[in-house]
Parts: sequence; structure tokens; C-alpha cells
Amino acid sequence: MHFFSGRRVLITGGLGFIGSNLAISLVDAGALVTIVDSSLAASGANLFNIATISNQVVVDTSDMRDYDSLSLMVKDKDYIFHLAGQVSHGDSMRDPITDIEVNCIATINLVEACRHNNPRVRLVYTSTRQVYGVPDYLPIDENHIATPIDVNGINKLTGEYYHLLYDKVYDLNSTVLRLTNTYGPRQQIRNDRQGFIGIFIRQALKGEKIRIFGSGEQIRDFNYVDDVIDAMLLSASTDKCYGNFYNLGSQSKHSLIDFIDLLNEIVPVRYEIVPFPKSNKIIDIGDYYGDFSRFHSATNWQPRVELSEGLNKTIDFYQKYSKEYWE
Amino acid sequence: MHFFSGRRVLITGGLGFIGSNLAISLVDAGALVTIVDSSLAASGANLFNIATISNQVVVDTSDMRDYDSLSLMVKDKDYIFHLAGQVSHGDSMRDPITDIEVNCIATINLVEACRHNNPRVRLVYTSTRQVYGVPDYLPIDENHIATPIDVNGINKLTGEYYHLLYDKVYDLNSTVLRLTNTYGPRQQIRNDRQGFIGIFIRQALKGEKIRIFGSGEQIRDFNYVDDVIDAMLLSASTDKCYGNFYNLGSQSKHSLIDFIDLLNEIVPVRYEIVPFPKSNKIIDIGDYYGDFSRFHSATNWQPRVELSEGLNKTIDFYQKYSKEYWE
Repeated sequence: MHFFSGRRVLITGGLGFIGSNLAISLVDAGALVTIVDSSLAASGANLFNIATISNQVVVDTSDMRDYDSLSLMVKDKDYIFHLAGQVSHGDSMRDPITDIEVNCIATINLVEACRHNNPRVRLVYTSTRQVYGVPDYLPIDENHIATPIDVNGINKLTGEYYHLLYDKVYDLNSTVLRLTNTYGPRQQIRNDRQGFIGIFIRQALKGEKIRIFGSGEQIRDFNYVDDVIDAMLLSASTDKCYGNFYNLGSQSKHSLIDFIDLLNEIVPVRYEIVPFPKSNKIIDIGDYYGDFSRFHSATNWQPRVELSEGLNKTIDFYQKYSKEYWE
Repeated sequence: MHFFSGRRVLITGGLGFIGSNLAISLVDAGALVTIVDSSLAASGANLFNIATISNQVVVDTSDMRDYDSLSLMVKDKDYIFHLAGQVSHGDSMRDPITDIEVNCIATINLVEACRHNNPRVRLVYTSTRQVYGVPDYLPIDENHIATPIDVNGINKLTGEYYHLLYDKVYDLNSTVLRLTNTYGPRQQIRNDRQGFIGIFIRQALKGEKIRIFGSGEQIRDFNYVDDVIDAMLLSASTDKCYGNFYNLGSQSKHSLIDFIDLLNEIVPVRYEIVPFPKSNKIIDIGDYYGDFSRFHSATNWQPRVELSEGLNKTIDFYQKYSKEYWE
């Protein structure tokens, strides 16, 4: 029997990209899944993401900025995966207050609600490699100092601190995963809010010319969403992860041009390399790849899906469900 | 002529302990000082703090959580010293949302207001040694990783990040000072919200028995408020400080029992050593003292007032103005 069979699980942001993939995995594993997602206009929430499990999950549309509904919702849960949040760099710079509300206030509401109503629950928080800012060394491990270079990175880091603080001082069980570039089915790729992978995929599918900023030689690490879901489930079921934060990452690293070349083996791609626009130059971090050996030691996790294989599955999905995602 | 003569200066939290001492120094230097202070009930705001300069400063009582009033206020300023904030550990744990509003939202409002209305202004933000949490090594320098162990420390760190981010991406000029234990005239010592020094001083003045938690052997560094004001003025007038963050600190270190012994040379003190209560144990960081050599290199600053001398001046002040502060 699967570890999560019969477990009561709350997924915040469960209509979004990673949250919905997690919900599907957990339903498959026999868990009793509740999704809370307020479907903010700028978010990746999409009801189609959970079309295959819509009769097997409870969807609560309340807004986590409201403490009271949360305090009820956490009561009977065994596990909470906290993925709800604002994830757009640009939105965070244009409207930092909303980013604080959605990433900081909603998060403190969640840990407060757990502290008061369900201190024995286990919490997994998805953070981001953005908290590091510009790498001082590569691969970046968890000892690397955090110097976020956008409002979103700052507020996600603040959310990490709240989780780890409440773990320490109130004996909540919280663990933090710093995700790197995650790709796969069910991502919002209709607009440019959710990072370059979704943008490149949409442009390739539409036959538009992809624009790469910089040299194209920038190195990144990529995780297929199924590997990220594995990591989340493993971290939740591994007691020693609680109270700690971990990088995800990949054995393989690819330049952006590598990435485009792999994409081009699946759909024909045209691209051009252009200088960074001024507004993007400030978030140019150069190369990035993370060291995930701390998490591997704790859980034995390592990604299993190579980029070419993952991209094949991803493109298949978006071609099949074009109307739901980009057409 | 003094560097600040004729300069237009905004001091947020200028009715509080450090803000009012700064206002007095700047008025003495010939600056045109505006104070913004909403006098929150839990804060250290005290009109008596500026009694000697009340006709020489403008006091604006608006709340920095309101962006619009700030956007007007920053317009014509040359320098802004941002001291307004929630500083109580206990209050931040009891009411984390207010702490986020006062320390994060008010701060992003300030840097946003400057970005849009006065990007050439120079900003000095007072942060705290609390951002470090439990020292991994001593003395702590700025390379020490930040792991705050209370909500207030997390949110003050977030405020630092906002300042440094806006310095980097919008060419604001921001510098951050991490203050250690600051003491002196004009501190709120009537209740226990503003740290152990004020509590000990009030108890000594009232002839009450002082309770030291732990062994009493914990080491701290102390800065007399005049030295902190010097540091703030120096950092504001030193261009290379902008974009950076700095520890303050002291050449001298003292255990809490040392501190009590020095106090006892001025007023008779009774004390007892008791175990940490459970609620305080979690914020027991052991010994702390900071390395301020980075700031010394940049500005040549070093503290000049020894603890015994500073305590003499401090006790003199509170004895003279007992009704305004503790009776």
C-alpha cells in the first residue's frame, strides 16, 4: 500500500502547475486530497489541470490572505503542501504589495493556523532557487548566502523563514524545497508570467520565433515535474527533512541553446539571440545550477527524467490540449 | 559648517528612542528635520523625546502603511533615516501580521515612494543583530548566514533586502546598519517591549529585583546611542556605504553580570539569576558580539563611549525625567 493511502492532504495552489500534478499523484496513491486555490487572475490556476480527478478531490476557493477560512481548513489534515503563491518576477516588481500579501501574509496565516489548530501536521513548502540571486560559486549548495534580486525572491525567502521558525519554536514539522527550473504538463504557458520554459514552448508550438536574451550559453538545470512531485512526497515522508531546507537540481546541465536544440528535435524551432533588455538585465544571474546532494543524502532522491524525454512528454501534452493552454 | 547643515532630512520613527536622538543631533547640525511617526501604542514614540527641539522640527503623524502620504512626504528630501518599525520580539510572535505590516509593507511603501518620487534621495535603514539568530562563530561578521529566530528578525531582514534590492535595480541609494544592543536616554523603559537593557534600568531605578535569565555569563556588546547616531550620520555621508550592509558593535564586551555590576556602581541593584522561562528559552542565542571592521574600514567609525560612562549619562537622564519614562 502506498505511504499516502488514506492520508488527508491539503494542497495550497492545487489548481496550478505543480500543485495539480501533485494532486493527481496523491489521488492515484489513495490520499484524500483537498485543494485550496483562490484562482487569482495572474496565477497558473486552471480547472482543466484537475479534469481527470475532479470527482475525487475537494476544491476550496477561499483566499489564504483570510486567516479564518484557513484555520478551519487545516484542522483534520495529515500533510499540507504549500504551493500557493505569486511566482512572477515581473508582477512582484510591478506590484510588490500583492506579492507580500500572497507570499508572506498568506504563509504566516498558514503556519499560524497550523500552530493553533493542528500543530502535528506536516508541512512542505516549495521555494525557489531565486532566493540565491547571483551565484558566488557553482553548483550552489545550501550554504550559499541568499541575496535575492527581485521582490518575489525576497518574499519567498521570507516564507521559508516563517516555516523554519515555526518548526523550531512551536514544534511544527516544516520542510522547505528550493525548486529550480521545473517544466512539464499543466503549466500556465498562455502568457509570459511563469518563466522562460513555458514561453519557449508556447512560441515553438505557435511557430513563433523564440528570443533568447544574452548569449544563449547560460547554463541551467531542469527538473521534469514528475521528479519534483517525487521529491515532495519523499520529503514529506522522511522525518529528518523537517526543520531543514533543500535544493532540488539535476545531474544534467544545459545551456539555453542546448534546450532549444532539444526542443527542435520535437517541434521545429526558429530562434534569435538578442541582448538583454534593460528591465531584464537586472535579473540576469549568469549560469545557475544547484547541488542537491544534501537532499539526496536525506531521501535518496534523484531526478529520473532526462530533459529530452521530459520535453517529449510535455510537447505531447500541450499539442493534445492546445485549446486549454495556449491556443 | 556641518555636513548636514541645510539638508532636508526625514526621520521615520523620529519620536522613538534612536530616532529622537538622531533628530536632536541633526537639528543641532542645522538640518531641516521632518519626523514621521504614527505613535503606535506599542511603540517607543514619546513626544517628550523631542521636547527640546519641538519648535524646530515638523512632525507628521501619518502611518507608513499608507502609501499615498509617504509618496508626498519623501519628495523634497535629501536624506531619509528609516527607523520606524515594530521592535518587540514578543509582539512579533503574538501578532505576526502587524509585524509584517509595520516592518515589511511600510518599508516597501517607503522604497517605492522614493523610487517613484525621489530616486536621488539617500536612505539609511536601521536593522538589527537579531537577523543572525544563533551565532555559528564570534565575533559575527557580515558573511555570517542569517537565520532569524523570531518573526521580528525575519521581517527586519526582509526590510534590509528591499532596501538593497531597490538600491541595485532602481539606483536608489540605500545602506543598512545592523545595530546591536543600543542604550541611552529617550528609550521606552516603562514596559518590557524594548529589550533587556531598558527593563534592567527601570527595575534598578525602582529598587526592584532584577531577574537575569540563564547563567548571567552571556556576553553582549553595547552601543551608547550617541555612537549609533554618529554611525548613522557617517554612513549617510559616505557614498561607498550605499548598496551595502554593516554591523555596528563595540571593542568592549560584557557579560550580563558585568553590566549589572556597572549599573550597581551608579544605583544600588539587587538581582537574581533564574532559569530561562520556556517562552524565552527559544530566543536564547548564547553569547553575541559583532565584528564591525567592515564599517570601520568604510567610515573610520568606532564607538567612543565606554559602557560605564554611557550608563552614568543614561541613569542621570532617567532620574531627572522619571515621570516621563518610568514613574
